[in-house]
Amino acid sequence: MEERFDELKTRLAEIHDLRRSLELLFWDQTVMMPPGGGPVRGQQLTTLDRIAHEKFVSDEIGELLEGLAGHEQELDYDSDEASLIRTTRRDHDKARRVPAELAAEMTGAAAEAHDVWAKAREDNDYALFLPQLERAVELKRRYIECFDGYDEPYDVLLDDFEPGMKTAEVRAVFDDLKAELVPLIAEIGSVDGDDAFMAGPWPVDAQHAYSLEIIRRFGFDESFARLDLTVHPFAASSGTQDIRLTTRYKEDDITSIFTAMHECGHGLYEHGVSPALERTPLCHGVSLALHESQSRMWENIVGRSREFWNHFYPSFQETFSEAVGEVDQERFYRAINRVKPSYIRVDADKATYNLHISLRFELEQEIFAGTIDLKELPAEWNRRFEEYLGIPVPTDTLGVLQDVHWSGGGFGYFPTYSLGNIVSVQIWEKVLSELPDLPEQFEQGEFGQLHEWLRDRLYVLGRKFTPQETLERVVGTPRIDAAPYVRYLKDKLGALAAA
Amino acid sequence: MEERFDELKTRLAEIHDLRRSLELLFWDQTVMMPPGGGPVRGQQLTTLDRIAHEKFVSDEIGELLEGLAGHEQELDYDSDEASLIRTTRRDHDKARRVPAELAAEMTGAAAEAHDVWAKAREDNDYALFLPQLERAVELKRRYIECFDGYDEPYDVLLDDFEPGMKTAEVRAVFDDLKAELVPLIAEIGSVDGDDAFMAGPWPVDAQHAYSLEIIRRFGFDESFARLDLTVHPFAASSGTQDIRLTTRYKEDDITSIFTAMHECGHGLYEHGVSPALERTPLCHGVSLALHESQSRMWENIVGRSREFWNHFYPSFQETFSEAVGEVDQERFYRAINRVKPSYIRVDADKATYNLHISLRFELEQEIFAGTIDLKELPAEWNRRFEEYLGIPVPTDTLGVLQDVHWSGGGFGYFPTYSLGNIVSVQIWEKVLSELPDLPEQFEQGEFGQLHEWLRDRLYVLGRKFTPQETLERVVGTPRIDAAPYVRYLKDKLGALAAA
Repeated sequence: MEERFDELKTRLAEIHDLRRSLELLFWDQTVMMPPGGGPVRGQQLTTLDRIAHEKFVSDEIGELLEGLAGHEQELDYDSDEASLIRTTRRDHDKARRVPAELAAEMTGAAAEAHDVWAKAREDNDYALFLPQLERAVELKRRYIECFDGYDEPYDVLLDDFEPGMKTAEVRAVFDDLKAELVPLIAEIGSVDGDDAFMAGPWPVDAQHAYSLEIIRRFGFDESFARLDLTVHPFAASSGTQDIRLTTRYKEDDITSIFTAMHECGHGLYEHGVSPALERTPLCHGVSLALHESQSRMWENIVGRSREFWNHFYPSFQETFSEAVGEVDQERFYRAINRVKPSYIRVDADKATYNLHISLRFELEQEIFAGTIDLKELPAEWNRRFEEYLGIPVPTDTLGVLQDVHWSGGGFGYFPTYSLGNIVSVQIWEKVLSELPDLPEQFEQGEFGQLHEWLRDRLYVLGRKFTPQETLERVVGTPRIDAAPYVRYLKDKLGALAAA
Repeated sequence: MEERFDELKTRLAEIHDLRRSLELLFWDQTVMMPPGGGPVRGQQLTTLDRIAHEKFVSDEIGELLEGLAGHEQELDYDSDEASLIRTTRRDHDKARRVPAELAAEMTGAAAEAHDVWAKAREDNDYALFLPQLERAVELKRRYIECFDGYDEPYDVLLDDFEPGMKTAEVRAVFDDLKAELVPLIAEIGSVDGDDAFMAGPWPVDAQHAYSLEIIRRFGFDESFARLDLTVHPFAASSGTQDIRLTTRYKEDDITSIFTAMHECGHGLYEHGVSPALERTPLCHGVSLALHESQSRMWENIVGRSREFWNHFYPSFQETFSEAVGEVDQERFYRAINRVKPSYIRVDADKATYNLHISLRFELEQEIFAGTIDLKELPAEWNRRFEEYLGIPVPTDTLGVLQDVHWSGGGFGYFPTYSLGNIVSVQIWEKVLSELPDLPEQFEQGEFGQLHEWLRDRLYVLGRKFTPQETLERVVGTPRIDAAPYVRYLKDKLGALAAA
């Protein structure tokens, strides 16, 4: 039995090595590769992905898992061994259900649709994109048919990003959230302020140095991590001790400070996974929502807090004196916490952001429930957008065409962004109940105790448990609950609006 | 038949993707990776290497090659198709002969010996290294036994780096070379000059900018290449359009200028391989000697020529005015072409360098002929070193322990360095006979025609032919011949000594 388990572990380590190599090759492609390298790199990524997939869906893995079923029962549920067998079985069963031809067709369609989408967005031409979208939806329907035992078709899509999460649960969470947020935003979204100073100038070198200064305080360290430049910031890793964060700088925009904190949150999560799980499929954050809870934790709950800026503002003001030399801390604090409806999701503030997501989540469900005609999607988008955010959508480029996700068949992904916001505050309430003096620590520029708590309770677990089990271990309930998040937003934004 | 060939090509492309990914992961490890990533990266490299090897030595590849034997006969020998089948058959036959256990044992022994060697070198303690060296030699003997049909055991070792080359041939070349070089160096190696200015200061940023300035003239371009920092400079690539050069800078050393030219030569070779060979095992320089001929061509024949500096010296002097503001071009030219016996191979000038190699080549042959006792190696090293270079070796650290190669079982590698020098001048004589005004072009800072000639005659061929066939296509003879190189050195150094 010991031997069989070792054999499974060896095979999974090999597959993991391939997947992490793939992640590193992708990082390199985005951050370092000369442009000419694109076509060959694309082939390399495809090859490594195919080999990893073939090895994972092999009969040998299936037989090993079957042979280990009895052994698994004897093991402690919480042990690394039991978790590895259990999680791998789930992954393996899912992966075996999708025929290689369908997977290849989806990959091909996504690649083709990407360029059409980009052109459609540029030209504000939804009709151009429509056939691609229809194909993506059709392929995803066939994908859904590979599975059974779901309550609604959309459950299958959600499961790829948030394993075990049901559409009905997410719907309930978003309903709660929307009911509270729409009136709140209508009220405070109209409070204006003079934020003209936010246009800079913010010298790019200083942005980089300051970003590093902040994330080093959070726990980032060059012995296990890098921070580089890219067009679309992301975090990747080749192992727990090799974390790659990326960011971008613009002279007229100080968002980079928050981008660095955001990506650092992702990176600290990956870095904090138990060393015992290295080179296993458990060596990863457990779901997109949990991952996003950590990027939002460090970016928003910490990085946009009053206490954080009580500590940093003097040196920030000195560093960026041309932009904020004459701007007092309160004015800066309000500017970075401003709530103001806008069209583009990725530029939205942290409150209205959730309504952008809610809109997409509703439309996705209706698409797969078959209750909406794809031709009507722009009209339906625009109608709801104005209802939720109070501003009319001028073009499809600023509306239904803005995001890349659907062109690649990425349905079910969007909700995890908002779930991340929600979970981040569930966790924050829990931490704060145990470590009530964290805000004072932030004022001293100390973040080590928060990092330690998150690492020991959440990061260390990796993918040992389901997201629900993980959440339960961290905050005491398996349920994602919007209430703490709504309380947090109301408290924070209400105070700003009233002041 | 067409189908069978396509199947072979597909399988080889997959293996090539793995190997190039490996090369990129190695580059990243050396240039970009945070130090903590080491252990996991080592595993990733091992995994990718093992998968590539397993796929390559598979029965399926063997059967495809067998099935294509008739087809190959019908094809034009020079065609890409025939070359692919022919070269792959040779590689496959070789790879199949070495048992996986022996290969693994060699890899393990090399890893272990590396650290012992490093300590032995540091402590000047040959006795410490001796058992590791004995083991490396023993394993290499077993490796040699996997093969047959050789004239001398050393042929097998040489073949790994210089396919098809016989020890007897190399011996003849080195005998010619040594007979000429020993007296020449005894004569001119005693000519001293005031080179104190070579200690700088050479500002590091300016070294980088100037290195780029030069290699851009050679053909380097950011659209397909990068130049980064590392401890031990090298060139790597992930494809013909993705070339990675590395270099290093020291404030008191201007060697970087030549390092950049050297690595650029390697890079231009890889970049110039025919696009039709991309993602095949033919997409690579054909041998170490041919590769080294290109790094030496650009570094020494071009980069240390009078004409090159006639063009560059004014801007060089301006850029590095603190070091050479008062140094006239002739004095600088003499300093960078100075011949002076010294102990360490990698720091040696281009003339004495060959005697360092000759010494190693002789000792390696005797080790595998069994005519030398490894215990006596330091004494034998020291005796010959003084005979060839005229200076006594003070310590083993500066003698037999200086190079890493033997600890890793890298016997047969050293001679290719000098063969590269020799071949570079064979090619140079040929180019010059066809393009006699190249030196005038260099004076104008123009190197495009040389690059084009080398690309169209040599680079484009990749590994389609054996090194001997390749050399024949480029210079008209398959034989490596020391005479042109000796003429070149005598002309150039004689002029300097006489002046």
